[in-house]
Amino acid sequence: MRIVALAGGIGAARFLRGLRQVEPDSEITAIVNTGDDISLHGLRVCPDLDTVMYTLGGGISDERGWGRQDETFVVRSELDAYGVGPSWFGLGDRDLATHLVRTQMLDAGYPLSQVTAALCDRWSPGLRLLPMSDDRVETHVVTDVPGAGRQALHFQEWWIRYGAKLPAERFVGVGAEQAAPAPGVLEAIAAAEVLLFPPSNPVVSIGTILAIPGIREALRAADAPLVGVSPIVGGAPVRGMADACLAAIGVEVSAEGVGRHYGARRSTAGADGLLDAWLVDASDAGSTVPGVEVAVRPLLMPDVASAAALAQATLEVARALR
Amino acid sequence: MRIVALAGGIGAARFLRGLRQVEPDSEITAIVNTGDDISLHGLRVCPDLDTVMYTLGGGISDERGWGRQDETFVVRSELDAYGVGPSWFGLGDRDLATHLVRTQMLDAGYPLSQVTAALCDRWSPGLRLLPMSDDRVETHVVTDVPGAGRQALHFQEWWIRYGAKLPAERFVGVGAEQAAPAPGVLEAIAAAEVLLFPPSNPVVSIGTILAIPGIREALRAADAPLVGVSPIVGGAPVRGMADACLAAIGVEVSAEGVGRHYGARRSTAGADGLLDAWLVDASDAGSTVPGVEVAVRPLLMPDVASAAALAQATLEVARALR
Repeated sequence: MRIVALAGGIGAARFLRGLRQVEPDSEITAIVNTGDDISLHGLRVCPDLDTVMYTLGGGISDERGWGRQDETFVVRSELDAYGVGPSWFGLGDRDLATHLVRTQMLDAGYPLSQVTAALCDRWSPGLRLLPMSDDRVETHVVTDVPGAGRQALHFQEWWIRYGAKLPAERFVGVGAEQAAPAPGVLEAIAAAEVLLFPPSNPVVSIGTILAIPGIREALRAADAPLVGVSPIVGGAPVRGMADACLAAIGVEVSAEGVGRHYGARRSTAGADGLLDAWLVDASDAGSTVPGVEVAVRPLLMPDVASAAALAQATLEVARALR
Repeated sequence: MRIVALAGGIGAARFLRGLRQVEPDSEITAIVNTGDDISLHGLRVCPDLDTVMYTLGGGISDERGWGRQDETFVVRSELDAYGVGPSWFGLGDRDLATHLVRTQMLDAGYPLSQVTAALCDRWSPGLRLLPMSDDRVETHVVTDVPGAGRQALHFQEWWIRYGAKLPAERFVGVGAEQAAPAPGVLEAIAAAEVLLFPPSNPVVSIGTILAIPGIREALRAADAPLVGVSPIVGGAPVRGMADACLAAIGVEVSAEGVGRHYGARRSTAGADGLLDAWLVDASDAGSTVPGVEVAVRPLLMPDVASAAALAQATLEVARALR
């Protein structure tokens, strides 16, 4: 089966690890957000691509959910000794090797999609990992920084340095409007038999991918059913700080709110959304999204087995729709 | 006192550490070979500059003589896992931070001399460290590589990967003829009260510095006496593989041979060399260099105290010449 999922970082990576376990023979393509990418010390860092690659490739730190297991931070401590920031970004030594290889290939002229494929030669994630775009897109956050006034911070600075605690006025995908989907993205969506939104941040992960011209349209035009998994359980994000992002775009922090934000793809008059079905947790039973089948399933993924069960449940909902 | 020394790596670094100890109030400038510099994984590595900086700054691995103490090699092992070479270059994690800072500053447009000064802000080496040039110069070695034929290898590949065991046909300072001395180099030489050649490789360290147009002429025109310390003791290099380099340029591997190679600066008719005095070890007593005062002193530097004694002896010879 040809399965295509849009993906942010940790939530998507864990969901995809479960999906690969239950669908070992399927051709799975993950279209990954690159709006969180950042250049640090001259190195190009792609947090979401790496989180998915490391998680599927067996290199992830399962405790943190991001970065490498058995990580060390020798280079970071030396950069601190030179007084060279930013010290708030946890740049590990193992992780750094990935960025070195990536940056050298990018500098040599390879597009990010080919670089990603080359990195995956080592990790064998068992699925095809595509950046949403080979063009540079960076999510910035317009916010008031105490003592510094209104600023557009790089998403990573807002997210990590300030813990998403500065109220976001809005998110700007710098470069998104001029970006093109990476080679293979639109083709994969068109050829998919199942389309999935794993439980990723609807604003700065899935939302950023959808901001690349052509991707939203391709999803709406595709034949395959599109099933989403709510990243909100019981009124709060399972991980991360999606609540702070949803507030900025005026969306209620609830499974129902996010489902309505994505909207119905086809079944209601004038539908211009994306979902055919929406999975919510038992604690959110009763959520309704006009024109969208809402299914109640256990959404928490404390381990690979529960992620596999969730992936299985998602596929079953999708199959019932076909 | 204003002292200027030309410098390669380990031998010069140890000599300079001794010199600084006996001349804490003198203004010491080291003009450092950059022909060994190499770009690895997109990072600019300057082995001789770093060896001097780390040695004088207290960060050197005294056992190896190069690189950082308490070094780790996590990034290198990850690059190996990606199949990204060269694996023969011992790129340490602590060291790598220096290259990251340097590369980012170079990419931002700062010349190497300013980058070096910025790095020295951390290390406080107690002397002024100047690259011989801000222009890129790389020493290549023309040699026969078994199975690959005649090649021009980067010096580092010849030196480290092949252990200087492939007979060198010749050394080429790529870029040297077009390079200019770094800002301050010619001025320091002209203003010096003592000029020194520490026991560095006469071909690929001192020789490369002398190949930068203007430096040799400035040394010959300077008022200060120029005293050299033989890197050859008892017919063999104290460290490194200078013998393999000397063979390529047809110079005898002896203290006398190297002294004659540098030649007399002034005292003989038609002199076009550089030395006023030449220090050789007791095992090389009897060496003669026409027009040059040959002084016998203990040249080995097993510790800082002996390096200080050698520096002291060198200065005494210089003072007697003034």
